[in-house]
Amino acid sequence: MGVSQMARRPPRDIDMLEPRLLSVNQVTTRERWSLEQAIDGYARLGIAGIGTWSESVRDLGLATAGRRIRDAGLAVTGHLVGGLLTDRDPAARRARIDDNRRVIEEAAELGARCVVTIAGGLPVGERDLVGARARALDGLAELLPVARAAGVTLGLEPLHPMICAARSVLPTLELANDWYEALATDGGDGLGIVVDVYAVWWDPNLASEIARASGRICAFHLSDWLAETTDLRLDRGMMGDGVIDIPGIRRMVEDAGYDGMREVEIFSARDWWRRDPEEVIATIKERYRTAV
Amino acid sequence: MGVSQMARRPPRDIDMLEPRLLSVNQVTTRERWSLEQAIDGYARLGIAGIGTWSESVRDLGLATAGRRIRDAGLAVTGHLVGGLLTDRDPAARRARIDDNRRVIEEAAELGARCVVTIAGGLPVGERDLVGARARALDGLAELLPVARAAGVTLGLEPLHPMICAARSVLPTLELANDWYEALATDGGDGLGIVVDVYAVWWDPNLASEIARASGRICAFHLSDWLAETTDLRLDRGMMGDGVIDIPGIRRMVEDAGYDGMREVEIFSARDWWRRDPEEVIATIKERYRTAV
Repeated sequence: MGVSQMARRPPRDIDMLEPRLLSVNQVTTRERWSLEQAIDGYARLGIAGIGTWSESVRDLGLATAGRRIRDAGLAVTGHLVGGLLTDRDPAARRARIDDNRRVIEEAAELGARCVVTIAGGLPVGERDLVGARARALDGLAELLPVARAAGVTLGLEPLHPMICAARSVLPTLELANDWYEALATDGGDGLGIVVDVYAVWWDPNLASEIARASGRICAFHLSDWLAETTDLRLDRGMMGDGVIDIPGIRRMVEDAGYDGMREVEIFSARDWWRRDPEEVIATIKERYRTAV
Repeated sequence: MGVSQMARRPPRDIDMLEPRLLSVNQVTTRERWSLEQAIDGYARLGIAGIGTWSESVRDLGLATAGRRIRDAGLAVTGHLVGGLLTDRDPAARRARIDDNRRVIEEAAELGARCVVTIAGGLPVGERDLVGARARALDGLAELLPVARAAGVTLGLEPLHPMICAARSVLPTLELANDWYEALATDGGDGLGIVVDVYAVWWDPNLASEIARASGRICAFHLSDWLAETTDLRLDRGMMGDGVIDIPGIRRMVEDAGYDGMREVEIFSARDWWRRDPEEVIATIKERYRTAV
């Protein structure tokens, strides 16, 4: 059974943009707030959820991180990074599978909605995309029973084609749906799809592939594409500052049955990472009302 | 009838990488060589074709440019820029259609294999991709009879999704094939598809969409994707310096019936544009043998 099928759809007349559905990925304030500070700050400022990164959780200690997040009353809308499964070298591949097992354990302890799972890029010196994709899919097949045993969902997240080489040979929702179907032959338990507007907004097949992902979507990520983007990874914009029709994509995702939280995840080395996190969160809350 | 169907396929046993099929787009040497210098230099260094830009041709004078290119014995493998048809403002749109008519006339005079035709990006302040795509397709439908009357082929070129907002709401070969079929209801005369490895290499549907473009491909553009790309438009690499499986894509294109020239088109503000064009051309010739 897919992720969203388990949850009852809220009635149409409630405010879909209510604050209880707003989450922020800790990367959004990473330069100025530690995980501890982010947990405290987000909760104090009325954010309902957090997206966490393994590195930070390990630094703070898993048990401590889990306790603090629970005490703060925050949902964990995603835990990163899962996947990165394209290595050809057997030792590197084994180390990555082991790390994924640990990430899955962490997600279970944190009660995360999903492990945000990315394919991985092309290994250094490689040009064989078909092979890299096959290895990623094999790795996911190996991890899926682990996730199921832990009660955790692997959320397959396609990333933008411009980071195909660096981070993700999974560049479209269509391929994410294909992989989901290849993996979920005995049902979609433990498997989901993450829709990040930044990664998919350009896709001519967006509407049909989101509809095809009905019942599969386990997380919905928000940021914006700046018309004058200056970096392939670290120049995302605040919702409303760019060209993405975010309300349009939100409606597609909702029409596909998703009624979970919206997680703001802004990689912005030149702008938002430099600002006071209080200002960043205040802006997110405002834009959540006006631009989502 | 599609473009390539008109040409007889060469026998399998000839060298597919023979020099007579190597063309260079003038943008590749734009910082150091004028169009005149490029015509002379390419011919002198054994390049068989050139891709031309309207702005340079107008600066030199159309008749002069055509005469010099013919005298140099160069084929014109593409003339740019056609398209850019996403404007909503009627006056801007009309001006663009008029410019396209002029570009088509130039391509006829130059004997260009095609007008390289790109969709255009999102107009400033717009977020409606569906509408922008519809306007681009409408504009193409208006221009197709003009191209046919001039004996010119409009080559639809999908560009990389990372420049969807800035330059091209046509980000995939799949959509280019859809548009081709929507426009070519009375046959593909005057219509083609341009395959640029830099724009499409990441696409999970690449093989099937190139096969679908059989008989439609009117130009094949070469450069490479650098693992450490630093700019969304002007950081293309030399063939062999990046991650694209260029020989693999070349074979797909050939299996789809394309037996025309290969045009090297490198936008590289930080590297190749700064080098001595003689060195750039020498490197292109070497990489054409070893990395294409």
